[in-house]
Amino acid sequence: MSELTSPALDIALAYHQAWTSHDLDKAMTYVADDIVCDAPAGRLEGATAYREFMGPFVQILTGSKLIAAFGDDDTALVMYDTETVPVKSAPGAECVTIKDGRITNSRFIFDRAPFDAARKAAN
Amino acid sequence: MSELTSPALDIALAYHQAWTSHDLDKAMTYVADDIVCDAPAGRLEGATAYREFMGPFVQILTGSKLIAAFGDDDTALVMYDTETVPVKSAPGAECVTIKDGRITNSRFIFDRAPFDAARKAAN
Repeated sequence: MSELTSPALDIALAYHQAWTSHDLDKAMTYVADDIVCDAPAGRLEGATAYREFMGPFVQILTGSKLIAAFGDDDTALVMYDTETVPVKSAPGAECVTIKDGRITNSRFIFDRAPFDAARKAAN
Repeated sequence: MSELTSPALDIALAYHQAWTSHDLDKAMTYVADDIVCDAPAGRLEGATAYREFMGPFVQILTGSKLIAAFGDDDTALVMYDTETVPVKSAPGAECVTIKDGRITNSRFIFDRAPFDAARKAAN
């Protein structure tokens, strides 16, 4: 795991630690009310929309492992693997911008294909 | 764009610059013969398999923009957006390990779903 400390990275990792521990309430304390997140399915605007997006994912999360994390004063870039109920290895990457201790912008990448396949197989 | 210089990042960015400029020959000079790459569709082993994977993607690439890039002595983490013929915004993230100036390991994340959808729509 590669990791250098930085103000933005501290927040990004505290956020990461919270949601991967299934503590979405704590995770949301690091998320700005007016967060803008560009996720695979499109843009999410505001903390409510963001929480509605993360909630179902946290529910199916069974494990996670940080792969690498870097940051500077206001930006952090984090890559991790997750284990979920439908998909055994679902890695993700997030580039977040931090302002006043909260994530204001997030660019979020993961592969939706195995989740689509698992959904089809279940139906 | 966030970027701090580091020995590993220099190589990762030189590699990135080469393939996003459609110069796959030059890009491959930064890739170790025994590269191991964990990509969305599975593990690729060796430079030949890696090139066969990147080749078709470079052919459909019409634009790219670096989002963030960080690194330390031996690891670099890069996120970028690409524009391709079938998918207008196809962001990716790569975590690479560098040894002797070449990428020996790569963890590669992108969303296959829009490419799957474009393929279906074309058939």
